Amino acid sequence: MNGKINVTVWNEYRHELQHETCRKAYPQGIHVAVGEALLEDGAFDVNYAWLDKDAEHGLSQELLDKTDVLFWWGHMAHGEVKDEIVDRVQKRVQEGMGLVVLHSGHKSKIFMRMLGTTCNLKWREVGEKERIWNIEPAHPIAAGLPEHFELPHTEMYGERFDIPTPKDVVFITWYEGGEVFRSGVTFERGYGRIFYFAPGHETFPIFYDKNIRKVLVNAAKWAAPRIVREIPCPCVKPLEEIKTKLEE
Amino acid sequence: MNGKINVTVWNEYRHELQHETCRKAYPQGIHVAVGEALLEDGAFDVNYAWLDKDAEHGLSQELLDKTDVLFWWGHMAHGEVKDEIVDRVQKRVQEGMGLVVLHSGHKSKIFMRMLGTTCNLKWREVGEKERIWNIEPAHPIAAGLPEHFELPHTEMYGERFDIPTPKDVVFITWYEGGEVFRSGVTFERGYGRIFYFAPGHETFPIFYDKNIRKVLVNAAKWAAPRIVREIPCPCVKPLEEIKTKLEE
Amino acid sequence: MNGKINVTVWNEYRHELQHETCRKAYPQGIHVAVGEALLEDGAFDVNYAWLDKDAEHGLSQELLDKTDVLFWWGHMAHGEVKDEIVDRVQKRVQEGMGLVVLHSGHKSKIFMRMLGTTCNLKWREVGEKERIWNIEPAHPIAAGLPEHFELPHTEMYGERFDIPTPKDVVFITWYEGGEVFRSGVTFERGYGRIFYFAPGHETFPIFYDKNIRKVLVNAAKWAAPRIVREIPCPCVKPLEEIKTKLEE
Amino acid sequence: MNGKINVTVWNEYRHELQHETCRKAYPQGIHVAVGEALLEDGAFDVNYAWLDKDAEHGLSQELLDKTDVLFWWGHMAHGEVKDEIVDRVQKRVQEGMGLVVLHSGHKSKIFMRMLGTTCNLKWREVGEKERIWNIEPAHPIAAGLPEHFELPHTEMYGERFDIPTPKDVVFITWYEGGEVFRSGVTFERGYGRIFYFAPGHETFPIFYDKNIRKVLVNAAKWAAPRIVREIPCPCVKPLEEIKTKLEE
Repeated sequence: MNGKINVTVWNEYRHELQHETCRKAYPQGIHVAVGEALLEDGAFDVNYAWLDKDAEHGLSQELLDKTDVLFWWGHMAHGEVKDEIVDRVQKRVQEGMGLVVLHSGHKSKIFMRMLGTTCNLKWREVGEKERIWNIEPAHPIAAGLPEHFELPHTEMYGERFDIPTPKDVVFITWYEGGEVFRSGVTFERGYGRIFYFAPGHETFPIFYDKNIRKVLVNAAKWAAPRIVREIPCPCVKPLEEIKTKLEE
Repeated sequence: MNGKINVTVWNEYRHELQHETCRKAYPQGIHVAVGEALLEDGAFDVNYAWLDKDAEHGLSQELLDKTDVLFWWGHMAHGEVKDEIVDRVQKRVQEGMGLVVLHSGHKSKIFMRMLGTTCNLKWREVGEKERIWNIEPAHPIAAGLPEHFELPHTEMYGERFDIPTPKDVVFITWYEGGEVFRSGVTFERGYGRIFYFAPGHETFPIFYDKNIRKVLVNAAKWAAPRIVREIPCPCVKPLEEIKTKLEE
Repeated sequence: MNGKINVTVWNEYRHELQHETCRKAYPQGIHVAVGEALLEDGAFDVNYAWLDKDAEHGLSQELLDKTDVLFWWGHMAHGEVKDEIVDRVQKRVQEGMGLVVLHSGHKSKIFMRMLGTTCNLKWREVGEKERIWNIEPAHPIAAGLPEHFELPHTEMYGERFDIPTPKDVVFITWYEGGEVFRSGVTFERGYGRIFYFAPGHETFPIFYDKNIRKVLVNAAKWAAPRIVREIPCPCVKPLEEIKTKLEE
Repeated sequence: MNGKINVTVWNEYRHELQHETCRKAYPQGIHVAVGEALLEDGAFDVNYAWLDKDAEHGLSQELLDKTDVLFWWGHMAHGEVKDEIVDRVQKRVQEGMGLVVLHSGHKSKIFMRMLGTTCNLKWREVGEKERIWNIEPAHPIAAGLPEHFELPHTEMYGERFDIPTPKDVVFITWYEGGEVFRSGVTFERGYGRIFYFAPGHETFPIFYDKNIRKVLVNAAKWAAPRIVREIPCPCVKPLEEIKTKLEE
């Protein structure tokens, strides 16, 4: 309506309510930190939804129908997301909605559903340093970012990351503890674009980092629908005259 | 044990029992025609399974555990395949088993599960001519095949085919009625290889065609596991000394 | 300066001067027909260059430096394009300039240089019908195009087309004579985007077709630089302290 | 003849003759160290060629015609490799010969010719530690390798590596000094397969490392031709009757 991109930020929103350290890092929840990064840019309208918001985890068909890009952060309660809501989100992504999956969302139902793999990886939580290398500086998601940037304290997510070969590997991470990770990767499914971004642990203030926020903004713009359309399976008439048609 | 590749050919096996024209084309079932194409080559041991074989559709964990490559043909009863059996097959593909999906298997649960898309397409059933172009003559699945070959009567499957960008497009089909189709496409998911091959309608004797049989044999060899391994999600120790570790 | 995308349309411009049928189809040259399609859209400033324009084929460093997207049509005189001009164009593409290669430009030095393959294909010139299928409706180059469109008379370019696996196959063509072709394909090299589009024979009025013109406009917008930057090969200092450094 | 894969190992062979430290590391030349790794496996016949061997750098048409896989190591004299020899090698790769490019061969004429990019990267030579992560354990080039392995002293090659998106990223390297690198990547051009492998500096005994030697053996097997065939550009007759043919 107003020319803005409609983003819905979905957060599991359990850690922040249950754990003091998470609440300190994200007093209003991770979703609000992500949403504020987007609002700051000015190109977006932002809605919030979370697991326990209502019986549909806040993801009504009506909200999804007007959502251009859905952000997803989940961790401890992936299994509680109802399959029918995952179906709904998947269909909407296939029909053109963008999907940005953050950090521990790698094991969310929706992400595994879109990719078909386990999305397993190695992990470690000791607050080590992470350096993110910008492998595709010409990619829209890397716009305006330096050739590398650092997070002082992060959870390690290490290879092998069990994903299909990405469309683009935008970022590769170096970890102080000795691992590497394809930390920013893109996929396309149906008419929808998908971006997975690894940083974003619930106890580190990563979503306040200016480079991380730049990635969130870029990703939301990049993932905005190019078309939104149902995907039919029609029986069609021949366009050319057919000579070999069987007589029955 | 004997150095042969263990193939299980799974067939829905309803059409042949219910429809006279299918029974005429495949008196023992499509699975047996596919299996005999493989047996003729000599490199394979072949097992058969089908939807109504038993409560597990013939796909016991024991059988899957020794299956190197699973062929899949289904059509009218995709919805009757139990989700827990699809889970079992998916896990085995991720861990290294090959999967060859034939014709109307494009709408099987397992194929859509591996790809994340609707796999929708256009279709028409008038017995028109199909010409299959060999786009990647150096690909193992195209070994020994001419630069193009024809099927006199086929069901048309036309673009747009809603799949992720394939790893390789091995074949593209020209249809008499005016459509085109990426008729032989590969994917990788986890450690497993997947090949989708479009020809194979239940009323046309396509699986007796020598070029088609060559494709089936090549695909089974190509999809045979390179490794078979569980995909873990371990918490790991640092390989390098970490200096920035947080004090808690 | 004015917010427009700077396009340079390069045309060999020999056929139109030497052959009556080409002159009839393109009285001012193919480059002008292509350029007018772009100008009609309003988003572009257009310059023209051609083989015999001057000693640099009209492609001075100064012109290239301000060119965002270069269109290339050539055919009978590929070999006369000087290697140092091809070097210049290649470097500019690597640094971010878009490149749109049309029709018989598949055998141009610059296209083969960017791809590393022979770019060979099958061909036939009998004025048959071509139907172009829109395989990736969500791709920016397919924006606003129908699911298929036709050219009544075309030169046939058939598979196998010897190119590396494209980034995206946007269009696949069906030919009346029985062939197929990946007729719209994208590549990325360095920071630059490349689009090859097969239609465009010198004796058929293809570049006046409204769908074709839509593709040209879309391609020029899509190929516009995201960044323009030199690609260095620097010796760099360590970002982390190195303990295992050799004593010499 | 004997069922073995014919490998030609090409080495610039200047460093070893000119610099004491290189001669110490590779007394008979880098080519011999690479060749011995292959011979040890038993699946290969090995020939050697080098820049100053003869007027054709040891790469006669006759030798290339019987070479299944060509290894390439070069560094200080890339510019001295004659263009007509590069043409010859490129044509042979397009027609099916495998090409394995090692370390500083990233700036060889043949590698840049096959890829179309600058192949630039960051570098540093302080003998730091490198850890190579096996990203695609199911890829034939990773067969039998651990999930990661280390080189105690290496030259750093860091991102951004200016290459087209690889077919497969088999290895990603972690460097002690803080960089990452896509250190094992595959490409296909024409019917030929290409593997680039980053480790292999002239003063470190890297080609004696057992894991590195395993990669060399695997790469040579993987890159062996699947077909060898000229790539024509024929004018062909229609396969179907054409109705729209123009009257002239």
